[in-house]
Amino acid sequence: MPFPSDIEIAQSCKMDPIVSVAAKLNIPEDDLELYGRYKAKISHDLWNSVKDRPNGKLILVTAITPTPAGEGKTTTAVGLAQAMFKIGKKAALALREPSLGPVFGVKGGAAGGGYSQVVPMEDINIHFTGDLHAITAAHNLLAAMLDNSLQQGNPLNIDPRQIVLKRVMDMNDRSLRNIVIGLGGKANGVPRENGFDITVASEVMAIFCLATSLSDLKERLSRIIVAYTYDGKPVTCADLEAQGAMTMLLKDALKPNIVQTLEHTPAFIHGGPFANIAHGCNSIMATQYGLKLADYTITEAGFAADLGAEKFLDIVCRLGGIKPNAVVIVATVRALKMHGGVAKDKLGEVNMEALAAGIPNLEKHIENMNSFGLPVVVAVNAFPTDRPEELQLVEDKCAALGAKVVLSEIFAKGGEGGIEMAKAVVEACDQPNTFHYLYEPSMSPKEKITTIATKIYGADGVDFTADAEKDLKRFHDLGKDDLLVCMAKTQSSISDNANLKGRPTGFRVTVREVRLSAGAGFLVALCGAIMTMPGLPKRPAACNIDVDENGVISGLF
Amino acid sequence: MPFPSDIEIAQSCKMDPIVSVAAKLNIPEDDLELYGRYKAKISHDLWNSVKDRPNGKLILVTAITPTPAGEGKTTTAVGLAQAMFKIGKKAALALREPSLGPVFGVKGGAAGGGYSQVVPMEDINIHFTGDLHAITAAHNLLAAMLDNSLQQGNPLNIDPRQIVLKRVMDMNDRSLRNIVIGLGGKANGVPRENGFDITVASEVMAIFCLATSLSDLKERLSRIIVAYTYDGKPVTCADLEAQGAMTMLLKDALKPNIVQTLEHTPAFIHGGPFANIAHGCNSIMATQYGLKLADYTITEAGFAADLGAEKFLDIVCRLGGIKPNAVVIVATVRALKMHGGVAKDKLGEVNMEALAAGIPNLEKHIENMNSFGLPVVVAVNAFPTDRPEELQLVEDKCAALGAKVVLSEIFAKGGEGGIEMAKAVVEACDQPNTFHYLYEPSMSPKEKITTIATKIYGADGVDFTADAEKDLKRFHDLGKDDLLVCMAKTQSSISDNANLKGRPTGFRVTVREVRLSAGAGFLVALCGAIMTMPGLPKRPAACNIDVDENGVISGLF
Repeated sequence: MPFPSDIEIAQSCKMDPIVSVAAKLNIPEDDLELYGRYKAKISHDLWNSVKDRPNGKLILVTAITPTPAGEGKTTTAVGLAQAMFKIGKKAALALREPSLGPVFGVKGGAAGGGYSQVVPMEDINIHFTGDLHAITAAHNLLAAMLDNSLQQGNPLNIDPRQIVLKRVMDMNDRSLRNIVIGLGGKANGVPRENGFDITVASEVMAIFCLATSLSDLKERLSRIIVAYTYDGKPVTCADLEAQGAMTMLLKDALKPNIVQTLEHTPAFIHGGPFANIAHGCNSIMATQYGLKLADYTITEAGFAADLGAEKFLDIVCRLGGIKPNAVVIVATVRALKMHGGVAKDKLGEVNMEALAAGIPNLEKHIENMNSFGLPVVVAVNAFPTDRPEELQLVEDKCAALGAKVVLSEIFAKGGEGGIEMAKAVVEACDQPNTFHYLYEPSMSPKEKITTIATKIYGADGVDFTADAEKDLKRFHDLGKDDLLVCMAKTQSSISDNANLKGRPTGFRVTVREVRLSAGAGFLVALCGAIMTMPGLPKRPAACNIDVDENGVISGLF
Repeated sequence: MPFPSDIEIAQSCKMDPIVSVAAKLNIPEDDLELYGRYKAKISHDLWNSVKDRPNGKLILVTAITPTPAGEGKTTTAVGLAQAMFKIGKKAALALREPSLGPVFGVKGGAAGGGYSQVVPMEDINIHFTGDLHAITAAHNLLAAMLDNSLQQGNPLNIDPRQIVLKRVMDMNDRSLRNIVIGLGGKANGVPRENGFDITVASEVMAIFCLATSLSDLKERLSRIIVAYTYDGKPVTCADLEAQGAMTMLLKDALKPNIVQTLEHTPAFIHGGPFANIAHGCNSIMATQYGLKLADYTITEAGFAADLGAEKFLDIVCRLGGIKPNAVVIVATVRALKMHGGVAKDKLGEVNMEALAAGIPNLEKHIENMNSFGLPVVVAVNAFPTDRPEELQLVEDKCAALGAKVVLSEIFAKGGEGGIEMAKAVVEACDQPNTFHYLYEPSMSPKEKITTIATKIYGADGVDFTADAEKDLKRFHDLGKDDLLVCMAKTQSSISDNANLKGRPTGFRVTVREVRLSAGAGFLVALCGAIMTMPGLPKRPAACNIDVDENGVISGLF
């Protein structure tokens, strides 16, 4: 019998009413705002009654450097939460909500896989509770008010050549990357260059995920820099008086969403900033609710540990006052073999030499997480082709670094397949840890970037292009040197060169551009061309999607 | 004590749980998909259990030609439904859902006013249940797939100069009216002209409101013409294989929303096509639910009776198989005086001559409704400055046409102020009527347009510009002559000249352009420049909107 598809498994799940799922975390029914029977938002009121409780334990799930062989990071996070309940621990998930655009591009969901998924998966992948639409609307309101200000006599003296705010759409639409707007004469705006990013790349999304209250959200929104004047002064959202209306558009979205896993484990799914231009983690509010309501909260950061985990630990934990207790690094034997030089069609064959050559990628990520003072559990996401001697090799190498290695079978078996992992994670959480940030805000931006590049990526140093130097000078003059740093680089290598697999050495990182996210509170250091609006492939996945007369979806994943 | 503002009244309303409101129409709790405590969608399943029931009575609320003095059409519809319950009749409302864009432009909601409003008014005016966002996403997915087809070798042979599909955004953003997209080189699309309409102007919205089932929706979407090939053949949504994914995006949105009035009367608020480019009525599905579940369903059509009512009767009733029983025409003494030539600042003064000069506008609308075979009740929406002799004059004039005139005080008094109106409406519904359409689809497009212009507007004839002739020729060649006609003209006059107040005579109508909405199933005849993307004013209403730390909104209306 063939293994069923993700959507087949998800659609055959008999979900519990979300009221019962929330009850596992003692969330009163009155604090739930239902969106149908299986989705809800948590009312802002609940926070006041739980905020003084001690925090539960926090586990960050991250991964080795991704390869086409796949790792299964979200699947592992979901399976681990399910396994926690199997061993009698009250756990919650805190995950990102998926972007709609990619759903129509290349087949692939963002709600886990196999028997470790969050449900209702179709809803979560499509409109969910409308958070991304609210963020799109808030961002585009700001843009409309900006262009309206230009049109109405330009009282803020905005230089149309120095507008940094783009528009956003939650769609893979490459033809909107570079556009000219305001054509058609006097009644139709001021002509200028502009472009659309995908919604998750919006600074509003980053802010949304970092905000700790409605007031904090409004305050951060008001600081967004949208443009510069002819004499180089920043023009902010507050100058356009847009922050109140934007906050109104976001006020319901800011309430974390709760859904369930296939095994009815509570899952907060909330916010999802682009991992390659922002910090790539779910909202701080969702994680904080987990910490107050569950004994173990499992969260995930985008991309591999060099990018996602570093940003989670240095940005999210700092801004949210959150202290993690353990890190799970997800790896597969197949992906490690790819890091060791094996081609995709040979991954089923035993190749101990290539595996040994690929393991240093995992070792570097373990060392990095240890350098933050955190214990590591390595979860080897099992494939049917894995051999005992391969697992043994991974185990031996990791043991030398003090990391426990567990075989995870959560894809095929759900929580039952993650019991060993769950036990190892509980044990790791019980260890004392010495968690600390990698850098101090008081360091100069160059020092902060260089610290990340040398200590985490293993670079010999950092080069700044003339453009990047110019950017840094401008932000220095604006007094923004003490902001945090959000790295934007390829996810395909620990270095800034996508072709360098395994554990690259003897390289320098080049920062080509620096952007200021004044509302989010970080400087984005771009090491390479970063795509902020994806395109559709030759035959979009959308072509295969259908709905029958009863509303049953097919062709989605 | 000053009369409270709309938002003050709305926020002080103690709403009933939507489950109790729905129970008034015997909607089982299991058929409700809750969106919080006070909003719900009706599951598609309910339809099967009610579709064979006899229909209740249907009342269309429409109005005289609007003036800056205001009429209060939505307010009257809401108040009438409330009044129906006061006299022991089981009533339901079927109304349009507001567009977000205008909320940030010029202050003004779309949820009624005074003590006749639908609530939660903030939610209804902002994201509501996400229907408009779903429509935006479905439309823009189609656009992205179209430009992707151009980019991927243009297998459909699309002529980039003959693309008729624009993009949409639910925002007042004039700078997006005329744009150039696909700039930036080979990887970033094919450069071409494009533009954004406001979402409610999308053909997807019109289709959404005319669809009678998920299958009908998909079928109509597949027929949308997006472009023409180099050799002039139409390229449809089906050619791009987009209809399945678009239907998936719309499947939950298609379920009608239920909310309540300030007096807990059930209100279906669902769909809202632009009245000046589409038909301007709520979804057929919402109206049909009302007819099956309530004894009296009150619905409303956009703009005055010459536009909204004609399109409701000829398009919506025909496509939905719906037969109305009575028409309420809303008028105010103030607006009639403006039609008679009084300036806005003199409306408080008695001026019997001007009133008499303005009443023919009302008379023409009554005659028009009678010409469809329907009885008319004239609701004079009361203002404190109205005088008994003024009302008497309106009454006398209307009596001659067989229309009952009632004073409506629903703004100040809610349902209590509409009891006389409700009784008159019940009486009108009990009369036998001879409802029939104005034209037959088999007539030529020119005949259909001319019939509407001469019979409803009172024009002497219709002129078609060379462009319009060219359009008609193309649609004739495509075999589309038997489609219905959707008129697009100024709402400020019964004629196509906004300056002609009262009851214009001795004029001809000019059709400047004809557009084909092949999915919606109508030809749009444009008589004048029709704005499909509004702009923001010098100081947008958005600047005054705020949210406090508890999520309470201020500055919205």
